[in-house]
Amino acid sequence: MTKIFAYAIRKDEEPYVHEWKEAHPDVEVDFTDKLLTPETASLAEGSDGVVTYQQLDYKADTIEALDQLGIHNWSIRNVGIDNIDLKKAKELGFKLTNVPVYSPDAIAEHAAIQAARVLRQDKEMDMKLAKHDLRWAPTIGREVRDQTVGVIGTGHIGQVFMRIMEGFGAKVIAYDVFRNPVLEQKGYYVDTLDDLYAQADVISVHVPDTPENVHMINDESISKMKDDVVIVNVSRGPLVDTDAVVRGLDSGKIFGFVMDTYEGEVGIFNNDFSGKEFPDQRLADLIARPNVLVTPHTAFYTTHAVRNMVIKAFDNNLNLIKNEKPETPVDLDKEF
Amino acid sequence: MTKIFAYAIRKDEEPYVHEWKEAHPDVEVDFTDKLLTPETASLAEGSDGVVTYQQLDYKADTIEALDQLGIHNWSIRNVGIDNIDLKKAKELGFKLTNVPVYSPDAIAEHAAIQAARVLRQDKEMDMKLAKHDLRWAPTIGREVRDQTVGVIGTGHIGQVFMRIMEGFGAKVIAYDVFRNPVLEQKGYYVDTLDDLYAQADVISVHVPDTPENVHMINDESISKMKDDVVIVNVSRGPLVDTDAVVRGLDSGKIFGFVMDTYEGEVGIFNNDFSGKEFPDQRLADLIARPNVLVTPHTAFYTTHAVRNMVIKAFDNNLNLIKNEKPETPVDLDKEF
Ligand SMILES: NC(=O)c1ccc[n+]([C@@H]2O[C@H](COP(=O)([O-])OP(=O)(O)OC[C@H]3O[C@@H](n4cnc5c(N)ncnc54)[C@H](O)[C@@H]3O)[C@@H](O)[C@H]2O)c1
Ligand SMILES: NC(=O)c1ccc[n+]([C@@H]2O[C@H](COP(=O)([O-])OP(=O)(O)OC[C@H]3O[C@@H](n4cnc5c(N)ncnc54)[C@H](O)[C@@H]3O)[C@@H](O)[C@H]2O)c1
Repeated sequence: MTKIFAYAIRKDEEPYVHEWKEAHPDVEVDFTDKLLTPETASLAEGSDGVVTYQQLDYKADTIEALDQLGIHNWSIRNVGIDNIDLKKAKELGFKLTNVPVYSPDAIAEHAAIQAARVLRQDKEMDMKLAKHDLRWAPTIGREVRDQTVGVIGTGHIGQVFMRIMEGFGAKVIAYDVFRNPVLEQKGYYVDTLDDLYAQADVISVHVPDTPENVHMINDESISKMKDDVVIVNVSRGPLVDTDAVVRGLDSGKIFGFVMDTYEGEVGIFNNDFSGKEFPDQRLADLIARPNVLVTPHTAFYTTHAVRNMVIKAFDNNLNLIKNEKPETPVDLDKEF
Repeated sequence: MTKIFAYAIRKDEEPYVHEWKEAHPDVEVDFTDKLLTPETASLAEGSDGVVTYQQLDYKADTIEALDQLGIHNWSIRNVGIDNIDLKKAKELGFKLTNVPVYSPDAIAEHAAIQAARVLRQDKEMDMKLAKHDLRWAPTIGREVRDQTVGVIGTGHIGQVFMRIMEGFGAKVIAYDVFRNPVLEQKGYYVDTLDDLYAQADVISVHVPDTPENVHMINDESISKMKDDVVIVNVSRGPLVDTDAVVRGLDSGKIFGFVMDTYEGEVGIFNNDFSGKEFPDQRLADLIARPNVLVTPHTAFYTTHAVRNMVIKAFDNNLNLIKNEKPETPVDLDKEF
């Protein structure tokens, strides 16, 4: 009987593992909450494929351990493959899949909710409530419908964000280096980033973290924005020059900032520093500000997304095992 | 020259008073941050009308003080007129206006944002962040698009709430004792409240606080709802039996609760108890819960709403002074 073994299954993933298992009575499915390491590789003994969540570096020793068990079908539940020794994997004849798109809505909804909260000064009000100050003035909100929302990057996530903001009644404008023909026809695009900066009250960045996009939000771009602008980055930390945003917040130019990703997030996000010294003072300061909403790269973290990550990874793995074409293979020849 | 005097003008209202003044160079406009009382009435001396914000009881002595100054044109910037001695006002020949609708979007946006935050467990995550616990699991979110949203009351506010939730991609169903023909044609209405309770993952109440609607959300209605329901009340406190909701939260039946209005809010909301003993333990408990979002009747409190309240009240007052029909008169003959 075909067997798939899954590593690092969290409590919130278990229901979807069981769902997939029930839908595939002909496949034996087993899993552990442990990460895949050279030591835990033996747990997968007898399996035809493994499903993992990329968190650790998967170095040569881990990959060799799987190879020695005769396992070469490997499906990761998330996107990033930069922590995998792909050269070694290729050399040993591995077939690899990932899940590049699991829920654009998860990220777009988060961006919209957080942007709206900043406009409404909700965090300030929450902080007042927590200390039992129930006076409303002067904590007045701006309505989403009154804003011009500028979206940079109209891909999977940017498009959903646009639809949500229009549901609120906001005016939406957009900029992308490659224009989507449907959006183009509907007249969303402005000609230049400068046009977008000049018109938008809320600016949300939904572009990839390519070298040319690093620090695209910086002192110069901020200076071109309207006063009281709200800036949203739920994409990738390096897109934003954090020091420039801090200067904009301090001067009062920027009304508020939404940050789900951060230049210095590796080693800090998804860790627990409660009762310990916090390693990044700039981040601690941002977390404490009433007009800044920090989340630790959790925009993706919804039941819908997690279900898709699990189900798609198992589907992919079964495809690999059966020598069928998986939906989202990683092309090991292309990677280097 | 025609003169209007305004009371209790807050800092956030001043820009709109100035805006109205500039648009009406033929009218003298003056204002104070003081409330209208028998003592402060004399500040309006020489005016043709007064604009107030209903907060205090306006008893016979206050109304007589205005009468003695020959002022009988009275426009309030908000809705409620139950604190005004209307009998005395009628007897002394007053003409009265209010502003019944100033921004349905202000309230509907707040309901939508807060409902989404509850679904995403955002408050739990904010509380973790504040103590520097940056781990995401197990604080997983539910996406708005995956929910069936049940709207009770499809009036001004309910309709805007429906549009916003559809922008997120949610399935929207509705119930109203009077069906809106356009919504009816689009197939939103379920036949009974029980149908709505059986289907909805999020239930938002947008009905008036009439005697028959008091405690419409109670133990019985909650028992008919789906497990993990989110309940939203940004309408009026008495619509919800708060003790029943607390029981539902404690049992785990209710996933979360949004509360902008509260049965016992008078004398507590819009007051500062920081560093003092808090007068309502049930409310303190609700404020502290990670899956309950309390705001002190601030859903209305946006720049858009406040501008409308100021501009419309001044427009109304000028109509009264000129003996024209104001947009929203209070019918003193009808009131008792
Ligand atoms: N916070 C999270 O949990 C999370 C999860 C998934 C993805 N993301 C990030 O969200 C971002 C958007 O993802 P997506 O799936 O929508 O990507 P996508 O590839 O579908 O769309 C990106 C768009 O950006 C455009 N673009 C690239 N460079 C640009 C530039 N300089 N100016 C204007 N447009 C430019 C591209 O033409 C494309 O249309 C990425 O950075 C991704 O890494 C974040
Ligand atoms: N939180 C705030 O700051 C704030 C501000 C303004 C208004 N409100 C409240 O919001 C609520 C809705 O206001 P609105 O302007 O949309 O009112 P509206 O009069 O426009 O609509 C109310 C709707 O409820 C329906 N209705 C009445 N009783 C019903 C019942 N038992 N079941 C189903 N439907 C019923 C009516 O037919 C009507 O369509 C009111 O309670 C109002 O007091 C709150």
